[in-house]
Amino acid sequence: MSKVGIIMGSTSDMPIMEKAIEILKSFDIEVDVDIVSAHRTPEKLFDYAKNAHNRGISVIIAGAGGAAHLPGMVASLSPLPVIGVPVKSRNSIDGWDSVLSILQMPGGVPVATVALDGALNAGILAAQIIGSGDQKILDTIISYKEGLKQKVIDGAKQIKKA
Amino acid sequence: MSKVGIIMGSTSDMPIMEKAIEILKSFDIEVDVDIVSAHRTPEKLFDYAKNAHNRGISVIIAGAGGAAHLPGMVASLSPLPVIGVPVKSRNSIDGWDSVLSILQMPGGVPVATVALDGALNAGILAAQIIGSGDQKILDTIISYKEGLKQKVIDGAKQIKKA
Amino acid sequence: MSKVGIIMGSTSDMPIMEKAIEILKSFDIEVDVDIVSAHRTPEKLFDYAKNAHNRGISVIIAGAGGAAHLPGMVASLSPLPVIGVPVKSRNSIDGWDSVLSILQMPGGVPVATVALDGALNAGILAAQIIGSGDQKILDTIISYKEGLKQKVIDGAKQIKKA
Amino acid sequence: MSKVGIIMGSTSDMPIMEKAIEILKSFDIEVDVDIVSAHRTPEKLFDYAKNAHNRGISVIIAGAGGAAHLPGMVASLSPLPVIGVPVKSRNSIDGWDSVLSILQMPGGVPVATVALDGALNAGILAAQIIGSGDQKILDTIISYKEGLKQKVIDGAKQIKKA
Amino acid sequence: MSKVGIIMGSTSDMPIMEKAIEILKSFDIEVDVDIVSAHRTPEKLFDYAKNAHNRGISVIIAGAGGAAHLPGMVASLSPLPVIGVPVKSRNSIDGWDSVLSILQMPGGVPVATVALDGALNAGILAAQIIGSGDQKILDTIISYKEGLKQKVIDGAKQIKKA
Amino acid sequence: MSKVGIIMGSTSDMPIMEKAIEILKSFDIEVDVDIVSAHRTPEKLFDYAKNAHNRGISVIIAGAGGAAHLPGMVASLSPLPVIGVPVKSRNSIDGWDSVLSILQMPGGVPVATVALDGALNAGILAAQIIGSGDQKILDTIISYKEGLKQKVIDGAKQIKKA
Amino acid sequence: MSKVGIIMGSTSDMPIMEKAIEILKSFDIEVDVDIVSAHRTPEKLFDYAKNAHNRGISVIIAGAGGAAHLPGMVASLSPLPVIGVPVKSRNSIDGWDSVLSILQMPGGVPVATVALDGALNAGILAAQIIGSGDQKILDTIISYKEGLKQKVIDGAKQIKKA
Amino acid sequence: MSKVGIIMGSTSDMPIMEKAIEILKSFDIEVDVDIVSAHRTPEKLFDYAKNAHNRGISVIIAGAGGAAHLPGMVASLSPLPVIGVPVKSRNSIDGWDSVLSILQMPGGVPVATVALDGALNAGILAAQIIGSGDQKILDTIISYKEGLKQKVIDGAKQIKKA
Repeated sequence: MSKVGIIMGSTSDMPIMEKAIEILKSFDIEVDVDIVSAHRTPEKLFDYAKNAHNRGISVIIAGAGGAAHLPGMVASLSPLPVIGVPVKSRNSIDGWDSVLSILQMPGGVPVATVALDGALNAGILAAQIIGSGDQKILDTIISYKEGLKQKVIDGAKQIKKA
Repeated sequence: MSKVGIIMGSTSDMPIMEKAIEILKSFDIEVDVDIVSAHRTPEKLFDYAKNAHNRGISVIIAGAGGAAHLPGMVASLSPLPVIGVPVKSRNSIDGWDSVLSILQMPGGVPVATVALDGALNAGILAAQIIGSGDQKILDTIISYKEGLKQKVIDGAKQIKKA
Repeated sequence: MSKVGIIMGSTSDMPIMEKAIEILKSFDIEVDVDIVSAHRTPEKLFDYAKNAHNRGISVIIAGAGGAAHLPGMVASLSPLPVIGVPVKSRNSIDGWDSVLSILQMPGGVPVATVALDGALNAGILAAQIIGSGDQKILDTIISYKEGLKQKVIDGAKQIKKA
Repeated sequence: MSKVGIIMGSTSDMPIMEKAIEILKSFDIEVDVDIVSAHRTPEKLFDYAKNAHNRGISVIIAGAGGAAHLPGMVASLSPLPVIGVPVKSRNSIDGWDSVLSILQMPGGVPVATVALDGALNAGILAAQIIGSGDQKILDTIISYKEGLKQKVIDGAKQIKKA
Repeated sequence: MSKVGIIMGSTSDMPIMEKAIEILKSFDIEVDVDIVSAHRTPEKLFDYAKNAHNRGISVIIAGAGGAAHLPGMVASLSPLPVIGVPVKSRNSIDGWDSVLSILQMPGGVPVATVALDGALNAGILAAQIIGSGDQKILDTIISYKEGLKQKVIDGAKQIKKA
Repeated sequence: MSKVGIIMGSTSDMPIMEKAIEILKSFDIEVDVDIVSAHRTPEKLFDYAKNAHNRGISVIIAGAGGAAHLPGMVASLSPLPVIGVPVKSRNSIDGWDSVLSILQMPGGVPVATVALDGALNAGILAAQIIGSGDQKILDTIISYKEGLKQKVIDGAKQIKKA
Repeated sequence: MSKVGIIMGSTSDMPIMEKAIEILKSFDIEVDVDIVSAHRTPEKLFDYAKNAHNRGISVIIAGAGGAAHLPGMVASLSPLPVIGVPVKSRNSIDGWDSVLSILQMPGGVPVATVALDGALNAGILAAQIIGSGDQKILDTIISYKEGLKQKVIDGAKQIKKA
Repeated sequence: MSKVGIIMGSTSDMPIMEKAIEILKSFDIEVDVDIVSAHRTPEKLFDYAKNAHNRGISVIIAGAGGAAHLPGMVASLSPLPVIGVPVKSRNSIDGWDSVLSILQMPGGVPVATVALDGALNAGILAAQIIGSGDQKILDTIISYKEGLKQKVIDGAKQIKKA
C-alpha cells in the first residue's frame, strides 16, 4: 500500500510537522518519518530523494524554514509529488523566506506548497493525492470534510444560543 | 484513465494557463478545460467542484489572479487534490495578492500552490500526482527530467566553447 | 427595519468580531450573527448569501483570516453591500494574507474592506450605510462622532494639566 | 433621489476614477464629480465633507494616491459612508502607500476601501449602498451580476470550441 | 524665542512621543504639547495648523499611527516645517501603514519623516532646524553629538577589558 | 544669507535631484550643488559634512539610492539638519532599500526623510527650515501654497465644464 | 594560482553574471565558468561542489533566480567561501524570492550574499577574498577603489561647470 | 597569522555578535573585537577601516541594526573583504531595514551579507575566507561540517526510535 515519506531539516521542526503525521495516521495511511537536512546532510538528501519511489513511498512531505532548500532539492531528485511546508523558524524574517524559497520553484520542478506552518494541510493533501487513485482514501477524505462542516455547525449553534 | 481538470477565472488567464494544458498533452494525459469564475459564476463553481471526481477527473488545476478564491473554493467543495496557480493579473499588487490568497488556506482545506504564473509546474505536478499511482506516467516524468538535465548540459557546452 | 448580518468563519473570530456587534447594538440596530465558513461549510455560505436580502438584512459584515474567502464569496452571491474584516489569525503572515485576499477583489464584485481586525469600524460603516437612507441613524452617527471628539478634547486637557 | 459624490485629488486621477462615473451613470444614479485635494485645498475638503449630506449626496467615493489622506479626512468630517479608491500614482511604492493610508483607519472613522485602482468596484459598491434601501437599484445590481455571469459562460463556450 | 509644537493623535501615543519632549527640554527649547486627532477633531487640527506660526511656534512635530494623516494634514495647512513620527500602534501592520502614510506625501507638501517610533530623533531634528539659524542651539547640538561619541568610546573600553 | 547644500551620490541622480535645485532657485534661495559618494569618496564626504556649517550652508539635502548611506553619514558628521531623498535607482528593490536605509536612523542622528524620488519636497522642506527663522521666506512658502491651491481649483473648473 | 569558479543555473543568467567574469579578468584573476542547475542537474552540482577545492578553485560565485538553491547547496557541499548572486529572473516576485532564498541560510552554512543582480560586486568580493592573503591582489583592489573615486571627482567637476 | 576584526555599532549588539567570536575562537582564529558606530563615532570608523589591513587583520565582520551603515562604510574605506551581519534591533521594521541597508550596496563596494542575526555564519564565512588560502583552516572547516552532519544523523536516530 501507498506510504507517505515525511522529512524535515531538524528535530526542532517536529512540533510543526507532527500534525502531518497525526492526520495521516488517523486516515490509516502509513508514514515514514526522517530527519534530512539539505544543508547539513546533502548526501543523505540525495540518497533519500533518489530512492524514495523505489521504497514504496508515493508522496513526500518536506518541511523546512529560512532559506528552505529541502523541498525543492527533493523535488529535483525524485519523480514523486513533493509537498513543501514552509516552517516559521526562529530567525526567519516573518516566514517570508521559507515561503518564497519553497514556492517559487523554476519551471520543470514543482513543489506543492502549503501555508506557513501548514503541516496539517500537507498531510491532508498527501492523502488526497493517494485518494485520487484509491476510492477508499477518497471516501475517508469525504468523511473528514463532513466532520469539518459539523464542527462549524456546532459552533454556529453555540453562538445562536448565546 | 485519469483526467486533469483545468479551470481558470477568465479567458484572459489562458496565455498563462495554456502551459499546463500543453505539458499534460505532451505527457498523453487527457485534460478537461473550462472557464469557472468564483466571483461571477459561483453556481457553476459549485457544480464543477462537487462533481469533478464523479466525471473521471482525478486532479484539478485552478488558476486565478488578485483576490484569487477559485482554487480555495474548489478545494472546499471537492475531495480531489487541487493545484492553485497564482496569476499575476493586471491590477494585482505585484502578484502578492494572488499568491497569498491561494497559499494561506486554513487547516483542513489544502491547495497545492505553485509559483506565480507557474502553470507549467502545475501541469507537471498534476502528472506526478497521477504518476504516484501509475508506473507509466512515473516513467514519463523520469524521462522529462532527463530532458531538463540534457538542456543544461548543452548550455554548459556552449559556455565552455565561447 | 434594517438588520445587519454578521458572519465569521469560526467561533475563534468572535473576540475580534464582537466589537461590530456591540457598536451596532449601541446604535439600536438589529444584528443577526452566525458562523459561516467558506471552506468548511460552502453550502451554508451559498444559502446564507443567496437569501440574506430576502430575510430583512440590508448589509452583511463578514470577518475572516488567512486566505480569507468568506467576504468575497458572499459578495459574489448577494446583491447587498458586503463589508470585509481581515482578521489577523494565528498562522497569518502578519495579516497581509487576510488583507489582500479580501481587498483585491476583481472588477464587478466589490467588498468594502476595513482595517486589519477593524470590526468596530465595520459596525460603524454598516450603520452609515443604513444611515445614508435613514435620517435617524444618520443623526446617531453624528452624535457618535461628537463623542469621539469629546474624548480627544478631554485627553488634551489632561496633557495640558500634567 | 440619492446622488453619489465622486472626488479625487487631481485631474490626473480621472483615467482611473471615470470607471466609477460610468458604471453609476449606466445604473441611472446621479453623480456629482469634483477635484478636492486634501493637501492642496484643505479648506475645500472641509467644506465639501461637512456639507455633502445636506446637498443630497448619500455616498462619497474618494480616490487618491501615495500618502492618500483624502478618503480618511472626508470620513472624519462627514457622517456619510465613504468609499476609498487607492490609486497607483506615479511615485507610489507599488501602490502599497495608497492602500495602507486608506485602509488602516483608526477605530471610529471607517473608510470602505476597494482594490488598488478599483474605481469600477467603488461605483458598484456605491450603488449597492443605495440599493440596500432602494428595491429598484437592488434589482439593477441583480441584473448587472447576471450580465457578469453571462460573459463568463460565453467565454467558456469559446474555450470549449477551440 | 523659538518654540516647538508637539502634537499626537491620542494620549496613548505619549509613551513614544515623550522622548521628543524630554530631549527638547534638555536642550532648553520650549515645547507646546497638545492632543490633536486628524480623524476625531478635524476642526481643532485646522485651527492648530493654521495658527501655529502666529503663536511663536517655529517647528511642529506630529506623531500618529496606522493610517496616519495628522502630520500630512498639518503640513497641508501650515507654512512651518513639519516633522512626522510614525508610531507603531496596536493594530498597525508592523508599522508599514504609519511609515508610508506619513512619508509618501505628494509634491508640494513635504513632511520630514523620522524612523518608526523615532520621537527622540524628531526632537533632535527640531533642535537642528532651530539651530540652523541660531548659533547657540547649533553649539548645543555639537555638544550633544560629542556625548553620543563618548558613550560609544566608553562601551568600547568595557569590551576591550572583558 | 542662508544657503542650501545639495549633494548626491552620482551624476545619474541629477534628473531626480534637479527638482530640488529648481524650486529653491525659484524661491531665491542660493544652492551649492556637489557630487559626494559615501562609498566611493568617503574622504570627500567627511570634509563636506564636517565643514558645511562653516561655509554658510544651513541645510543639507542628500539624495542616494540602494543601500543609501550618504544622508545618514552626513547627518552623523554635521550639526545641520539633513534632508534625505531616497532615489529609486536601477537595481533598487522597488525603492524599499533606499527608503529604509535613509529613514530608519538610530536614536541620536536624525535624517529628515521625504518620499521616494521626492526631491521637489526636499527643496520645499529646506525652504521651510530656513523660513522658520526668516519671515520673508515664510511668506514665499505661503504664496507657493496658494499657487498649489489655485491649480486644483482650476482643475476642478475644467471637470465641471466637461 | 588562485582561481574563481563562477556558476549559474542557466545560460539566461549570463547577461548578469558576465560582469563578475569581466571584472575578475581585468584583475588578472583566472575564472572557471560553468552552467550548473541545482534543480535540473543535481548530480553535476554535487560533483562540482565536492571537488572545486581540489581543482585549484579558491572561491565560488553562484548566481540564481527565483527559489534560488544553487548557492546554498554549493555552500552545503564545499568548504570554500561561496558568494551568492540573487538574479531577478523573469517570474521572480520583484527579486524578493531570489534574495531571501540565498541570504537566509541556516546556522553552519553561510553564503556571502551580494545585492540583487550584483554580479560585479561578487567579482570584486572574490578578488578581495583572494587579496586577503595575497598582497598583489590587495594592491589591485586599492587601485580599483582609487579609480572609483576619480570618476566621482570628475562627475563633480562637470556639475560645478554646468 | 590572519586575524579577524569584529566590530559592532553598540554594546547592545553583543548578544548577537558573540556567536561570531565564539566560533572563530573554537577554530583557533584570533579575533580583535571593538565597538565602532558609523553614526556616533564616524572618525573612529574612518581610522579603523583605513588601517585594519595594516594591523594584521585579513577579514572584517561588522554587525549593525536599523539603517545599518557600518558594514558598507567600512567596505568603502578598506580593501579587505567585509562581512555584514544585519541585526534585528529593537526599533527595526522586522529586520528589513538592516537587511536591505547592508545587502544592497552599489557596484564597486561589496559587502558579504549573511542572514538576519546570522553572526555564527559570519564567523564561519570569515574562517572560510582565511581557509581559501590556508589548508589547515580549510581542514578545520571540513571537520566542522562533519560535525553538523553528525548532529542531524543523531537527531534522525532519535526520531526513528520514538
